[in-house]
Amino acid sequence: MKSKFVVIEGLEGAGKTTARDTVVDVLRQHGINDIVFTREPGGTPLAEKLRDLFKRGVDGELPTIKAEVLMLYAARVQLVETVIKPALARGAWVVGDRHDLSSQAYQGGGRGVDQQLMASLRDTVLGDFHPDLTLYLDLPPLVGLQRARARGELDRIEQEALPFFERTRARYLELAAQDESIVTVDAAQSLEQVTAAIRHSVSQWLQQEGA
Amino acid sequence: MKSKFVVIEGLEGAGKTTARDTVVDVLRQHGINDIVFTREPGGTPLAEKLRDLFKRGVDGELPTIKAEVLMLYAARVQLVETVIKPALARGAWVVGDRHDLSSQAYQGGGRGVDQQLMASLRDTVLGDFHPDLTLYLDLPPLVGLQRARARGELDRIEQEALPFFERTRARYLELAAQDESIVTVDAAQSLEQVTAAIRHSVSQWLQQEGA
Repeated sequence: MKSKFVVIEGLEGAGKTTARDTVVDVLRQHGINDIVFTREPGGTPLAEKLRDLFKRGVDGELPTIKAEVLMLYAARVQLVETVIKPALARGAWVVGDRHDLSSQAYQGGGRGVDQQLMASLRDTVLGDFHPDLTLYLDLPPLVGLQRARARGELDRIEQEALPFFERTRARYLELAAQDESIVTVDAAQSLEQVTAAIRHSVSQWLQQEGA
Repeated sequence: MKSKFVVIEGLEGAGKTTARDTVVDVLRQHGINDIVFTREPGGTPLAEKLRDLFKRGVDGELPTIKAEVLMLYAARVQLVETVIKPALARGAWVVGDRHDLSSQAYQGGGRGVDQQLMASLRDTVLGDFHPDLTLYLDLPPLVGLQRARARGELDRIEQEALPFFERTRARYLELAAQDESIVTVDAAQSLEQVTAAIRHSVSQWLQQEGA
């Protein structure tokens, strides 16, 4: 089977890291062992530097929302062109912690950036490149924030108020409903149930794809 | 008269710094003393950091051409939204060393980035914001490079081969021919002639604008 790009998406505290381990486990059970991991924003030295600039700013200067979106897309296209596409081309699978859907949900939904601007940037920058499968871990923002807080400090994005995360979640759900390649997983269930749901979805998808 | 945004454009070695001094001189003769200077890419701490990243990369990793263009636009929108527009709003004039035309010429013309991508980014990011007057200092690339080399080291962009600068100049001329707000100055003339031409163009424009 042609190698594929699988992405884990969701709010902070949704369980993306555990989900990634589960996905990798299922892939390995299907004989897929050459797997490249990415995280966004970031994933290359330049993209990580952009991530850092975007989160912390410089000398107290934070990016405007448009500058933030452009920096995110600069980091994304750098990762896609220098890591993800070359990995897929040599036959490796790629498992990503976040990809474009995060920008559509956080910047487009949460921060209210014009939808046409977001869509235009995505099309202009990425063309028809998109993940083969996206697992969206859905849960109420309050639950996710409590989990994230328990892990330690929250960064600038994570300090945004609850309504921001409600808008982000609403956009995630809206986009997931429109796109067959996005599978929504109820992440408010117990860890065992979430893991079972992910195992089931990925196995089923692999069978459909002929793995 | 409403405050305005005047931009100096041209290849390396075209004499942008001298031209800026001349423009400022003419503005002051017309009683315009509140003038903000910008340079692109850069002009704010964050935008300067992006300029640095774009020119030097990180740990030997240079941006892909698309990432480069997105970083340029991130820096530009940051400067426009936090410096240029607020300055114009409070009644100051802004004199810029390069602006969007540089990206259209260098990345669009020189590096051959798809024209539609460049136009789409400009429209998406900047909307209808554009300079009131642009002075494009035109000269053969070989002459400009010889002048720039005499000043010291050349950076990554400046080390590009001559055909790159020929393509950049061709795009500058093409865009200048389509846009009445761009005045082309023959920068291959003597310094005195170039200065006189700039004085004439700026004075005439100010009169038209009612200054």
